[in-house]
Amino acid sequence: MSPFDDPETLERFARLAVGFAANVQPGQLVQVKSEIGKEALTRAVAAEAYRTGAKYVDVEYFDLHVKRARLEHAAQETLDWVPDWLGAKLLALSDAHAARIALSGPAAPRLLEGIDPARSGKDQLPALKETGPVVNARTTNWTILPCPTRPWAEEVHPGLEPDAAWARLGEQLLHVCRLDEDDPVAAWRERAAVLVGAAARLTERRFEAVRFRGEGTDLRVGLLPTSTWLAAQFTTIDGLAHMPNLPSEEIFCSPDPERVDGVVRATKPLVLGGSVIRGLEVEFSGGVAVRIDAEEGADVLRGYAAKDAGAARLGEVALVDGDGRIGRLDTVFYDTLLDENAASHIALGNAYSFGAGKADQDRLNRSAIHVDFMIGSDAMEVDGLAAAGGETSVLRGGAWQL
Amino acid sequence: MSPFDDPETLERFARLAVGFAANVQPGQLVQVKSEIGKEALTRAVAAEAYRTGAKYVDVEYFDLHVKRARLEHAAQETLDWVPDWLGAKLLALSDAHAARIALSGPAAPRLLEGIDPARSGKDQLPALKETGPVVNARTTNWTILPCPTRPWAEEVHPGLEPDAAWARLGEQLLHVCRLDEDDPVAAWRERAAVLVGAAARLTERRFEAVRFRGEGTDLRVGLLPTSTWLAAQFTTIDGLAHMPNLPSEEIFCSPDPERVDGVVRATKPLVLGGSVIRGLEVEFSGGVAVRIDAEEGADVLRGYAAKDAGAARLGEVALVDGDGRIGRLDTVFYDTLLDENAASHIALGNAYSFGAGKADQDRLNRSAIHVDFMIGSDAMEVDGLAAAGGETSVLRGGAWQL
Repeated sequence: MSPFDDPETLERFARLAVGFAANVQPGQLVQVKSEIGKEALTRAVAAEAYRTGAKYVDVEYFDLHVKRARLEHAAQETLDWVPDWLGAKLLALSDAHAARIALSGPAAPRLLEGIDPARSGKDQLPALKETGPVVNARTTNWTILPCPTRPWAEEVHPGLEPDAAWARLGEQLLHVCRLDEDDPVAAWRERAAVLVGAAARLTERRFEAVRFRGEGTDLRVGLLPTSTWLAAQFTTIDGLAHMPNLPSEEIFCSPDPERVDGVVRATKPLVLGGSVIRGLEVEFSGGVAVRIDAEEGADVLRGYAAKDAGAARLGEVALVDGDGRIGRLDTVFYDTLLDENAASHIALGNAYSFGAGKADQDRLNRSAIHVDFMIGSDAMEVDGLAAAGGETSVLRGGAWQL
Repeated sequence: MSPFDDPETLERFARLAVGFAANVQPGQLVQVKSEIGKEALTRAVAAEAYRTGAKYVDVEYFDLHVKRARLEHAAQETLDWVPDWLGAKLLALSDAHAARIALSGPAAPRLLEGIDPARSGKDQLPALKETGPVVNARTTNWTILPCPTRPWAEEVHPGLEPDAAWARLGEQLLHVCRLDEDDPVAAWRERAAVLVGAAARLTERRFEAVRFRGEGTDLRVGLLPTSTWLAAQFTTIDGLAHMPNLPSEEIFCSPDPERVDGVVRATKPLVLGGSVIRGLEVEFSGGVAVRIDAEEGADVLRGYAAKDAGAARLGEVALVDGDGRIGRLDTVFYDTLLDENAASHIALGNAYSFGAGKADQDRLNRSAIHVDFMIGSDAMEVDGLAAAGGETSVLRGGAWQL
């Protein structure tokens, strides 16, 4: 039995999601993006949103089996076609200043295995190109949280019996969401204060680049003059505070897409569009990912990176310290939301506007994709490089050095 | 074990739905409206549509649990609010001349029990006011077919063990969909020929009214000069033949909304918005339903009938003979698609344009609702009344008399 079999746990989770992470307001529209296999938590979240006074809760259940049918049978030239109404709806939610809640975690982790990567790379639904601009417009208070499913639990804990795996994943998610605390909201406020402090100190130093060294990586990521480090606590243009990711253990900024050089090895597998990419190694030159190799699944990421002009450049660099709860579990979750918060990471594709100041908005990377991959570990040395020369330790052994 | 546990049955059903009933064409957009609990058949239909060459299959899973949460918790004045994007999407599908497939059958038959009918009557989702105009525009080749679920099976067969009920409903649905025939398409073509013939002969007589008598009913439904009887075989403006309902055993026309008088008793329960209305009796005067009573659930229908000016007037009158497969099963399915094809029926609300000629289009009933309820049985006498006086037997003992 998992804690997520208990209606009381579902309700506590829903209260954290609706009341704190998304910060839903009475009278708001609320979108819940879910997936077949996540019905119980989805219904708890929808009910809590209505109890909070939501005007209407729009629930979308994505079905990866239908996506697989498309990838198997549809004509190649149709695979990147996206119905207008999907983007139009997201823009309508943005115009209405809606709340948006998404439930992460693979409901069918290996379902797209065996699909030609040249085909699977073309269909990026349920991701939408409108998401980046809507996030940047800061019109919606949104959050992404993990929802356990049995297939996901068995993927994460293949050495356990299915029931034990299901229970273990549920316990881990409660722990990393700090729902095992008496007051999860207070625990999140405390953790956020540490990250907000580190972000502020890092921004203040105005490094011209950060350098990652260790475990096969030697990568220099240029920063813009106004690159701004942030913790994942956002505020909408209406002044509503929200946690875009829960859990969140990272600080991040938008780098210079023209100045990224060196080689980086992913320290965790990347789950992308239903495929798993293992042993990823990417070489950058002049900002561009000029080589993408992997032990498994490289073609899937190559497909994404070829999507548009910005898809092979960086839109994010993020640092995660060793005090977060995810890294300590030493578990690969095969879900970016969790795995990226276990380790420092970089992202190919679209940059967040708020990751840099006004003067540099035109220099930020723009793309229809945003693919995070994990490059950090306790063994990774992270340094800040000053424009005038000289370097400053930023992370050593997972601990902040400034 | 139900036949619907067998992937081969799902595939045969999907082929009948996609290839015959909806008549999906290569390159078309296809919408599949489904519900949580109907995943297996939904996926089979989507896969068959892609195999047929669909450009994109849009699957929507409605979740009645979320609707229940809305009805329980949302503010009264918000309950009839419908997001613009739902109607806009349907109109976009219409503009694209898409195919539309809906899977009928209650996935959670008693879930809305206990909700205040004044509240449940206000939220008519997933029904949309745009559906009537889109059907009338004949831009889309569409079909509604039944999909079995375990809760539905237990509702229909409460005297059987759950597994037996599930098997029995599956067998019944295969039978009424003529999927127990070697060539279901040929069987449907044969049945349709009988109904198309009866409809043509009835139209030819140009009765000024039809009268229903028996079992507590004495109702006269006025017809328009151009009221046209049709079997449920439609053709789009592009010339695509499709079966809007499968199974279909009815012929129907659009009546005169100003001339309906008398009392009618429903001969079967009506499932409406998740509620069950039993023992329904409606009195009409001058076309208007002036009294709606029932042993159970009258308020739900009263809520619908108060929706707009046309909601208390008739938009359809339909005749079902005794040769159809549904009536012979002597089973109440609690699903309009099946139950209306077991018996003659009338519908409150919007009329189909094609149920009358051009000259009478302005006289057809217009409403955001269309609620069928069953009034026929083998004991019901149906007569055609001529303008010049005199009456002609139309149905006696379930058999065509002309």
